[in-house]
Amino acid sequence: MDALLLTAPADVFYATGFLTRFWESPARPWFVVIPRSGDPVAVIPAIGAALMARTWMPQIRTWDAPDPRDDGIGLLTEVLGDLVPEQGCIGLPMGLETHLRMPLADYADLCGRLAPRSFVDATRVIQHVREVKSPAEIAKIRTSCAIAGRAFDAVPQFARPGRPLDRVFRDFQMHLLDEGADWVSYVAGGAGPDGYGDVISPAGSQPLRHGDVLMLDTGAVREGYFCDFDRNFAIGAASDVARRTHAALWQATEDVLQALRPGMLACDAHRLLCDGLTRHGAIPGGGRLGHGLGITLTEWPSFTPLDRTELREGMVLTLEPGAVIAEGRIMVHEENIVLRADGPELLSPRAPHDLPVIA
Amino acid sequence: MDALLLTAPADVFYATGFLTRFWESPARPWFVVIPRSGDPVAVIPAIGAALMARTWMPQIRTWDAPDPRDDGIGLLTEVLGDLVPEQGCIGLPMGLETHLRMPLADYADLCGRLAPRSFVDATRVIQHVREVKSPAEIAKIRTSCAIAGRAFDAVPQFARPGRPLDRVFRDFQMHLLDEGADWVSYVAGGAGPDGYGDVISPAGSQPLRHGDVLMLDTGAVREGYFCDFDRNFAIGAASDVARRTHAALWQATEDVLQALRPGMLACDAHRLLCDGLTRHGAIPGGGRLGHGLGITLTEWPSFTPLDRTELREGMVLTLEPGAVIAEGRIMVHEENIVLRADGPELLSPRAPHDLPVIA
Repeated sequence: MDALLLTAPADVFYATGFLTRFWESPARPWFVVIPRSGDPVAVIPAIGAALMARTWMPQIRTWDAPDPRDDGIGLLTEVLGDLVPEQGCIGLPMGLETHLRMPLADYADLCGRLAPRSFVDATRVIQHVREVKSPAEIAKIRTSCAIAGRAFDAVPQFARPGRPLDRVFRDFQMHLLDEGADWVSYVAGGAGPDGYGDVISPAGSQPLRHGDVLMLDTGAVREGYFCDFDRNFAIGAASDVARRTHAALWQATEDVLQALRPGMLACDAHRLLCDGLTRHGAIPGGGRLGHGLGITLTEWPSFTPLDRTELREGMVLTLEPGAVIAEGRIMVHEENIVLRADGPELLSPRAPHDLPVIA
Repeated sequence: MDALLLTAPADVFYATGFLTRFWESPARPWFVVIPRSGDPVAVIPAIGAALMARTWMPQIRTWDAPDPRDDGIGLLTEVLGDLVPEQGCIGLPMGLETHLRMPLADYADLCGRLAPRSFVDATRVIQHVREVKSPAEIAKIRTSCAIAGRAFDAVPQFARPGRPLDRVFRDFQMHLLDEGADWVSYVAGGAGPDGYGDVISPAGSQPLRHGDVLMLDTGAVREGYFCDFDRNFAIGAASDVARRTHAALWQATEDVLQALRPGMLACDAHRLLCDGLTRHGAIPGGGRLGHGLGITLTEWPSFTPLDRTELREGMVLTLEPGAVIAEGRIMVHEENIVLRADGPELLSPRAPHDLPVIA
């Protein structure tokens, strides 16, 4: 590859340090070009010039966006045309978990203008670099985890029987902010007797009831770095099955905290978690049981039977075992770790073994 | 077009009612297919089946994602192959302000598998429908605006001299949640003497100082619908230039609230705002001066000199004049409206004419 072209918020932030919530507006594309040698170039809307100028980026080219006649494609063609020889190729993330954050018609136009230069998939090289976190990155994720830990400690203050679930979600987000989150990109959860159904729905207005298990899960962000872990609480009292399931999830996690090592594969982590759940009397839930974590809520790899990514020292990962309690009813547990040479080091404050009861 | 293929969160929500923060994870693609006639089909990761089943969608097909061997492309090929004849074409948003939310390599694979069926740009048809809001949509945006209005009313409680700007951003988000936002997708702002520099940077830890103008801008979300407006405050005291600029922004907005009508073009709104600012003694700021609003923070059209989109009854829009105070120093003002047959109706509680001073 003669150059990399980056368009996604996380890749742009990773390469440049350019951090903004302005990505929430779909109106404008943003480009960063990293040549094989020489200085990288930011090709961005003029509205971002002042913020980009405060990063390390040595070259910033801007246009007045949005421009329906040419929304940066002419300028980007010029920059890439200068840096990449005619027979050269340009790397772009095209693989799993990536998206092209620019209009597809503009990409087709760009390909035509730059031909015979070709675009090739650069997912692997970007993934390989982003997967392993620096000490500075690990410190930031630890800070986000500590913020969420303090917010989880406050849950008994507001998650009382009768409190509507949507109000609980709001209270939790307020505590995350009060404890130091810059913003809260993700909150999910659920509540129900012994466990919960789906964990991706917005909260409804149904009140917490005695005997419910409440789960809250968050991706809170500090300085661009996410945490991603959850906690479970029994409202009023915990049933035997809820207590046993929580203990099994906790113990299966504990076993993997002891056993996981660099050199294992992502699918090995999945197998270890499944085996642990079974050994401790729980039925493993479907789907993936953990994933990478950092500048997005979830990153490569995925703990599934199919992912053969090698786990390496310095990877930040979630351990996320799920157990099936009954048809359509589950309990999930999650911790965040950094993988060291001698095994996992916790970044999230460890959940208690016993399911906490909010009296 | 024989079918539409939707991949972006807003388009999927618009077509189905499927609302979740789970989009924050880039791990899985989601697809909705809308054939020219007959039932639409959701082709989604199994983890979303329960939530999608609570929408009106009559057909839901799932796979276990993420799957590095085939992340839904085989299933999507089957669904589209059944619905679209071999010589037919499939509409996909490819134009300005759209992104393809699936891996580019999987899209290339899909194109190959479905050939000779072709993909064509469907931006215009989706834009044309989404631009005009239903009464139910307008009511939801009004609710989000009211929530933000109450949070802005609380700003004098926490934006005191000496308070760090990042703490002010957190306090503001907490008030938005407390007033009823489900989540806060966007907060931006700035502070400085007479005005501020860039308005897309995260807040730093510098304290508010006597004489600063503080601006806070938010896209708070309730039931999937955004508001997007800002408010300015003078800390301790307002300088003459800050007061005059605020009054000019307010009056230029007031003039457009009187003058805007269906049938005008987006570029006409830009011109009216520029003319008003000049008439009232301010220097119009660069960039766009308003845009659409609804299920994303910003939608089509853009109030720029280049956007010739016709403004139609039922469009929800922001009026966002900006004034240059000095080199690199601006003040911006924003209101949200729905365009009625006889002109704009405010959705945001109107800003005061005089720049409020927080004593």
